[in-house]
Amino acid sequence: MKTEINNSILSEFIGRLRAIHDEARINVSETGFEIKMIDPANVALISIELSSQSFESFSADESEIGIDLEKLADYISAAGKNDIIKLSIEEGSSKLKVAFDGFEYEVALLDPSTVKQAPRIPNLDLTAQVCVPTKEIYTVIKASEKLEDHICITIDSAKQILSTLSAKETTTLNAEIGMDKLISAPIGDGKAMYSLDYLADIFKSIKNKETTIKLDSDKPIIIESQFDEYSSSSFMLAPRIES
Amino acid sequence: MKTEINNSILSEFIGRLRAIHDEARINVSETGFEIKMIDPANVALISIELSSQSFESFSADESEIGIDLEKLADYISAAGKNDIIKLSIEEGSSKLKVAFDGFEYEVALLDPSTVKQAPRIPNLDLTAQVCVPTKEIYTVIKASEKLEDHICITIDSAKQILSTLSAKETTTLNAEIGMDKLISAPIGDGKAMYSLDYLADIFKSIKNKETTIKLDSDKPIIIESQFDEYSSSSFMLAPRIES
Amino acid sequence: MKTEINNSILSEFIGRLRAIHDEARINVSETGFEIKMIDPANVALISIELSSQSFESFSADESEIGIDLEKLADYISAAGKNDIIKLSIEEGSSKLKVAFDGFEYEVALLDPSTVKQAPRIPNLDLTAQVCVPTKEIYTVIKASEKLEDHICITIDSAKQILSTLSAKETTTLNAEIGMDKLISAPIGDGKAMYSLDYLADIFKSIKNKETTIKLDSDKPIIIESQFDEYSSSSFMLAPRIES
Repeated sequence: MKTEINNSILSEFIGRLRAIHDEARINVSETGFEIKMIDPANVALISIELSSQSFESFSADESEIGIDLEKLADYISAAGKNDIIKLSIEEGSSKLKVAFDGFEYEVALLDPSTVKQAPRIPNLDLTAQVCVPTKEIYTVIKASEKLEDHICITIDSAKQILSTLSAKETTTLNAEIGMDKLISAPIGDGKAMYSLDYLADIFKSIKNKETTIKLDSDKPIIIESQFDEYSSSSFMLAPRIES
Repeated sequence: MKTEINNSILSEFIGRLRAIHDEARINVSETGFEIKMIDPANVALISIELSSQSFESFSADESEIGIDLEKLADYISAAGKNDIIKLSIEEGSSKLKVAFDGFEYEVALLDPSTVKQAPRIPNLDLTAQVCVPTKEIYTVIKASEKLEDHICITIDSAKQILSTLSAKETTTLNAEIGMDKLISAPIGDGKAMYSLDYLADIFKSIKNKETTIKLDSDKPIIIESQFDEYSSSSFMLAPRIES
Repeated sequence: MKTEINNSILSEFIGRLRAIHDEARINVSETGFEIKMIDPANVALISIELSSQSFESFSADESEIGIDLEKLADYISAAGKNDIIKLSIEEGSSKLKVAFDGFEYEVALLDPSTVKQAPRIPNLDLTAQVCVPTKEIYTVIKASEKLEDHICITIDSAKQILSTLSAKETTTLNAEIGMDKLISAPIGDGKAMYSLDYLADIFKSIKNKETTIKLDSDKPIIIESQFDEYSSSSFMLAPRIES
């Protein structure tokens, strides 16, 4: 494997994966990297494709590699924001080379069989959908975290809003993102409750300005966002059932 | 009650109160908000008036309300610096509504009778007075905190200075703010010792550029500063008696 | 003693000394300040000369004074970056006066005889030498610290590089600073291993953009850098012997 990629894209790729888990089993093929990953508590999934077209240069045979994402993120933190990072594995080697600007790391790969198996991702047909500025929804998530550990999210196509409700003892917070801020008008209706911890990690990891949210009544939420015109990721988070 | 206020004014109002205590009993009337508050150790007082003219819009009947300032500060921290914040209480309700930019909090009011009673503020006739840039005196306070927990402040009208003395084991610090920095020439003379903890909290909370300091020999210090042309606060801090 | 010095020069002087130890025995003479100091573990030395020409004004008789550098750094941290700082000791006094912008500290001097004796600095004749941008080598040091507590540094005159090697369990890092970044071409060859803790403290303390590094096979490293055109310091750090 021999590839070159802009640090800004690689860092967002690693960041999104780390919102779910720190050890990745990456399927490498000539079309790029593909990963399906579930978090240790089996609550959140990520499905991500980093297209070979998102790389500056890409040449790879089919293989499966295991990577410690925390270490990798730590090492490339010394690189400039738009440095070109070379990721390569020599034929038959079990080491990843990470090179940029005078630095060359050799990192032992993980045995893929020791990394938690990617699950089969359920095919969901969710009724409600809206595209929001990532920053707006993240601001709501952060404010809600001050109150509680879960949040109720509603997509309302009649009112043309995405709204949230969170509460704590003596305080309730209603937040609305209306058509003055939404990127697309809401389609369909749905409402469910989710864990704020997971949502905060997920939205924090998305640097792209736009995120599409899909949900349904008491079903998982799907959170989709592009990297660039070729690559994207999709998070899926199970609902919390009100007791 | 139905009011709108610029976040920068509201935040400074809350900040100054929190220099003394985190639970406020606010007297609401058609002329605005008025609070007298003492700190739990009975060492520092604040008397503050937020005039109805400092609000963007203001409509209120006479009432007394109890507010948890720490929570309120936390909630409005999600607002932009110059966002307009709506504060309202519906007729007969025991909840404060705090709304801005898509966010709407409903916060339970405190029972005013559970909030520490405001004291009668003594009428002091202090001999010495000077107006200083808030930043200059705060810098002196911060430097003095590195040495000791109290500071001796002197206003000297002959030398035209405000000076301070603090000491610790092997080090003494003399600081002087002279006419090159003072906003008005000192009037009268006085000298007393005060707790640095309280002074640091008080001066940190004042964002206005100018502060008037009044003191006398071994008497309380009074620290006055405007919010804008309509509203102001006055702190009073008891002296420490040298043992 | 009666001197005035720009805070930027004084702060770097103190900072470099503090990379080695917090108590200094300063030899004062009409040519300036001179210090030789060893760290408590006897691993790193500094030899520093702050020329009287680096001061704004300088007048002093010969003397030896002991200074608590941590306190001094703390006190002058209230000064602006380019404030002129007056350092003075009155005839027969055991107190240092530190004055700037309205602040006047009086700090008790340490008894020089209680401060660890400066060692005789060995005269080393090292084979390899190169001048590097301080920031480049510091970046390599910081990246290496994430892996291990020591680093192998090589100067290679044939390849015209300064290179480093550090390793940890499953990762190795090779870093190279080549002629595109070096300030002067490497002279001679040498290679040795050093403690990263010490190197990080030393390079962090050097604010000058250029640093000269001298080393040899398994010998101490010498790290030299100017303050300005009149003054400079030289660090010496013992090698770690691979076991």
